[in-house]
Amino acid sequence: MNIIDIIVKKKNKEELTEEEIKYVINSYVEGSIKDYQMSSLLMAITINDMSNDEIKYMTKYMLESGNRLDLKDVVDKHSTGGVGDKTTLIVAPIVASCGVRVAKMSGRGLGHTGGTIDKLESIPNINLNLTKEEFIKEVDDINMAITSQTDNLVIADKKIYALRDVTGTVESIPLIASSIMSKKIASGAKKLVLDVKVGNGALIKNIEDARRLANIMVSLGKENNIDVICMLTNMDIPLGSNIGNTLEIEEVLDILTNKKDNNLRHLCIEISSYMVSLGLSITYEEAKKLVISKLNDLSAYNKFLEFIKYQHGDITKLTKKARVYNIKSNVEGYITKIDAYKVGRLSMLLGGGRENKEDVIDYSAGIILNKNINDYVNKGDILFTIYTNKDISNIDLNILNITKDKIDEQSLIYEIIK
Amino acid sequence: MNIIDIIVKKKNKEELTEEEIKYVINSYVEGSIKDYQMSSLLMAITINDMSNDEIKYMTKYMLESGNRLDLKDVVDKHSTGGVGDKTTLIVAPIVASCGVRVAKMSGRGLGHTGGTIDKLESIPNINLNLTKEEFIKEVDDINMAITSQTDNLVIADKKIYALRDVTGTVESIPLIASSIMSKKIASGAKKLVLDVKVGNGALIKNIEDARRLANIMVSLGKENNIDVICMLTNMDIPLGSNIGNTLEIEEVLDILTNKKDNNLRHLCIEISSYMVSLGLSITYEEAKKLVISKLNDLSAYNKFLEFIKYQHGDITKLTKKARVYNIKSNVEGYITKIDAYKVGRLSMLLGGGRENKEDVIDYSAGIILNKNINDYVNKGDILFTIYTNKDISNIDLNILNITKDKIDEQSLIYEIIK
Repeated sequence: MNIIDIIVKKKNKEELTEEEIKYVINSYVEGSIKDYQMSSLLMAITINDMSNDEIKYMTKYMLESGNRLDLKDVVDKHSTGGVGDKTTLIVAPIVASCGVRVAKMSGRGLGHTGGTIDKLESIPNINLNLTKEEFIKEVDDINMAITSQTDNLVIADKKIYALRDVTGTVESIPLIASSIMSKKIASGAKKLVLDVKVGNGALIKNIEDARRLANIMVSLGKENNIDVICMLTNMDIPLGSNIGNTLEIEEVLDILTNKKDNNLRHLCIEISSYMVSLGLSITYEEAKKLVISKLNDLSAYNKFLEFIKYQHGDITKLTKKARVYNIKSNVEGYITKIDAYKVGRLSMLLGGGRENKEDVIDYSAGIILNKNINDYVNKGDILFTIYTNKDISNIDLNILNITKDKIDEQSLIYEIIK
Repeated sequence: MNIIDIIVKKKNKEELTEEEIKYVINSYVEGSIKDYQMSSLLMAITINDMSNDEIKYMTKYMLESGNRLDLKDVVDKHSTGGVGDKTTLIVAPIVASCGVRVAKMSGRGLGHTGGTIDKLESIPNINLNLTKEEFIKEVDDINMAITSQTDNLVIADKKIYALRDVTGTVESIPLIASSIMSKKIASGAKKLVLDVKVGNGALIKNIEDARRLANIMVSLGKENNIDVICMLTNMDIPLGSNIGNTLEIEEVLDILTNKKDNNLRHLCIEISSYMVSLGLSITYEEAKKLVISKLNDLSAYNKFLEFIKYQHGDITKLTKKARVYNIKSNVEGYITKIDAYKVGRLSMLLGGGRENKEDVIDYSAGIILNKNINDYVNKGDILFTIYTNKDISNIDLNILNITKDKIDEQSLIYEIIK
């Protein structure tokens, strides 16, 4: 078997065999297929797509490239990534406080999207590099744990994911599906809620692609005895009003202490309800009642504090040492668009994210949106506040549209696929 | 400017700007764009193509990446590569003997196609690494010289070409056009005959692609004050009957001493006639008469001997130390296909070519075809003879079809574009 023949086959839109896919994954991990060959193949896959069988084999051999965990009776969740997406940090304590075990391995952000690990790192002293034993013990003790990914789980995915980031091959349904599902299967979870983000702030821009991705992941789940519920949710506008690491932790606290009622809170209740219904084998309606009660009586909030303390974080020492600029409206009208992609990119440029892997994050940098879609603004009203230690004179602050008329209300959740 | 944005743009079938193409070529040569990023972009170009403007800028900035030669009054030729294609070695002495200067930089073969430099290296002691000064002096002295490419001419092409070879991105019209034309413009020739091979033994498989490639190269020539004549020629069957390095040198001698009359001889007369008409500014008909007379009176043959001697080669010392196998027919009928790709690949497997860059060639290995298309064969007739030092028990020798009926005669030259 020869990698060039395989690349040319995919370039010519032909289907790769199971043997060919096995050869590609194993030889790439082992090093005989070079990065420049893999990236050429990944681009051919990104443009010419893969069949469901090819995705199945891709997932299978990626999975076999590393170790597996056996996390008993946990419910997992995964989001395909968006702007202001701090749902894991709200959903995990809600679900744990309902008596369902959550063991979450999370990643870092790149480009316009943030990462759960970066957000948590804005809490001083927190330990996010748990050993396998510490991770499992914490779940046994308090029903939840969050850690960064362990090195020997799905080795192929780590290598391929890093390469995709720097070669323009991130936005590919077969590559996204195999990456997510190989990790989820390897983690040993048997119940999984997936949040596929759709819109200009997400990797997936349209509902048809999201639906296809969801169906593929639900099928891969079934083949591996995992119950998967996949939600297709709106990422045309940011989730919640705070974007940036410390600012997002503050919004997590606001939601868990019932100080805010917004799209973020709504989505977290929905995700939690599906997770709890899977975890406790009860109906969605029963689960939702339980979820809301655990939010209202601050059980979820207390679970969050317990989790932070367990991992040695000090939530009382969040610092914001950035300069603050209030951005005001010079027109009047309705806010009809808050561009998630531009908001995410702005947060990154303010220091809250990484353009390149080696960039250092300024945890205090970010944006707080002061208005929602269809809010009316007068001249001089504050539209949003930015926090940064950078010079903002050359940064584009044009992240929202103001028009004479309101727009139709947008859905937060488009579809549930299971 | 950012390479990932540029890759994504091409992935999305958008046109790259002059500035973006300049940035890509310069940054790749300089090293800040990595091989794995360039190969991803090259695959996106191979699948999604380039506009004529993009090809123009690609050629321009590849050209600017290296030095230029100024070879006065030479006529150049280039073939896109095929199986049994030893035309340069026949055409150059014919044209030189007609009084036209030929200064040819040639390459090595890879995969199923051979390279002129490899073929010449089967002649003991020959020097194919001429300095610029030696190269020019030889053309001044005897009207012709052949050398391998100098290192500082079109540096970008060297780097990109080597990468394309190992990443499945060889078969791309914009990449072929910019590679050939940047080298030809850099060499300083103002008159050029291009032989675009079409068929299953060539890079270009169909006439429409060949026509497009030809038109692009003719346009690039015009923009750079080069007279280009482009021939579209048949590469479904091998050129001539000998394939393999020493064997091909022997066929060169057979043609130049008028011992053989086949498709190779016909094509060489045509290419030579166009080159001589450009070089002497006479009509094609006048040129063809001159070409045939120089073949018939052995002037071309003597020029070839003069050239070999000038570059220290000893043509009397060609050796064939391979084992010989005669492959006989076990059916009877007409030869209706001699598959150029399979013949080229067989020659490579026998030791006559390189599967990988580091492979060492066995100059004596190869094939002599004993039959032509539409020849009738009886059971037991020799179809072809193979020369090799390898074990042939696992090598596929199925390179031709024998059927009950003849087929229509195939064209050797499809079109002339200028």
